[in-house]
Amino acid sequence: MKTLTVKSRKATEFIDITREVEGAVAESGVREGVVTVYTPHTTTAILINENDPRLLSDYEKILEKLVPKGAGYAHDPGEGNAHAHLRSALIGPAKSVPVSAGRPVLGTWQRIFFVELDGPRTRRVMVQAIQ
Amino acid sequence: MKTLTVKSRKATEFIDITREVEGAVAESGVREGVVTVYTPHTTTAILINENDPRLLSDYEKILEKLVPKGAGYAHDPGEGNAHAHLRSALIGPAKSVPVSAGRPVLGTWQRIFFVELDGPRTRRVMVQAIQ
Amino acid sequence: MKTLTVKSRKATEFIDITREVEGAVAESGVREGVVTVYTPHTTTAILINENDPRLLSDYEKILEKLVPKGAGYAHDPGEGNAHAHLRSALIGPAKSVPVSAGRPVLGTWQRIFFVELDGPRTRRVMVQAIQ
Repeated sequence: MKTLTVKSRKATEFIDITREVEGAVAESGVREGVVTVYTPHTTTAILINENDPRLLSDYEKILEKLVPKGAGYAHDPGEGNAHAHLRSALIGPAKSVPVSAGRPVLGTWQRIFFVELDGPRTRRVMVQAIQ
Repeated sequence: MKTLTVKSRKATEFIDITREVEGAVAESGVREGVVTVYTPHTTTAILINENDPRLLSDYEKILEKLVPKGAGYAHDPGEGNAHAHLRSALIGPAKSVPVSAGRPVLGTWQRIFFVELDGPRTRRVMVQAIQ
Repeated sequence: MKTLTVKSRKATEFIDITREVEGAVAESGVREGVVTVYTPHTTTAILINENDPRLLSDYEKILEKLVPKGAGYAHDPGEGNAHAHLRSALIGPAKSVPVSAGRPVLGTWQRIFFVELDGPRTRRVMVQAIQ
C-alpha cells in the first residue's frame, strides 16, 4: 500500500491524483487486478470524472445545492463543517478501478480526484493494488 | 467471507459495525489487501463517516430532503418503500477499505455503518477480505 | 478481466447486466473473492438495486430533480451534457460485490445495472474478478 500526501488550498477543491495513482500501481508490480483509492478523513472523498475546470465548478455548485453549507445542521455548533461530512458521505471515501497490463483501466476522459470538502488542509490518500 | 446479522429497530437507522468488520478481517488472516463490506438488500446501504449522533440525524434529514418519503413514486402503490430503494441506490450497497497490518486503514474519525432505510428488520452484511 | 459491450437506445437507460457479470465471474474461475464492475466513461455509471420498471422510472425522476438537465451549467456550452457528467459522478463508475462459491453474492432482489446518462451510444463495462 502506498500513502500519498495531498495539500489542499481551498475550502472545496478537486485535486487530480491520477498520475500518482498510476505511479503507485506501477510500483506495486500488480499487472492484473484492482486498485482501491481511499481517503481516511470524514470531510474528504474520492471521485472519478473529467478534468474540466468548468465541470468541476458545476460539481461544486451541485454539492452546495444538494447539501448547503450552514443549513441549521445539528453537528454545526462548535464545528461548522456538517456540510463537509454529509458531502463526504454522499460521494464516498473510496473508488475501485480494475488494473490491466499494469495500469488502471481509466477511460479516455476519466481522471481520479481527491475531493477536499473542508480545507485547506494536509490530507492522506491510500492506494492499494491487489491481484 | 464472513456474514454478519444486523437487527434494526427503526425505519431509518445507522448501525456502527466497525468492530464486527475489524473482527472479520482479523479472522480472515489477511494482512495486506482490501476488505469489501456489502449488504445484499435493496433498501439498505453501507456508509463510512463519523459516529456523532447529531451528524447522523443531519444525514437522515438530508436523505429526506433529497429523496422524500411518499413523493408520488410509481413503485409505492402496494409497497410504500420507493424512497428506501432510491436512497439505497444513492448511497450504495458496498464500501471497500484497504487493509494494512491486518486492519482496515480507517481514519481516526471514520466508522463503518450499516444503513437501514426500510426497517425495522433483520438484515445481513457480507465482509470479504482479500490479499 | 472481461470487457462487455453495451448498446443503449435512450438518453437515460438502466440496462440489467447481472447475467453478463455472473458469466464473467464464472469464466474467471474465481470461487471466493470480489468482482469489480467498472464503466470507463464519464457519462455512465454502475448501480445495484431492484429491476422494477416503475422503480427505475422513479430513479430517473430523482436524478432529474437532483441534477436537472440544462440548468445553466458552465460545462454545457458546446457540450450540453453536464447533467450526465454530474449524475455519473454522483452514482459512481464502479461497484464491488463479494464472490462466494463462484457467484456474486447478490441478494434476492439485487440486480446490477449499467446506467446510460448521455445515450444512445455503444459503451463498455469491465468486469474484474480477483481472489
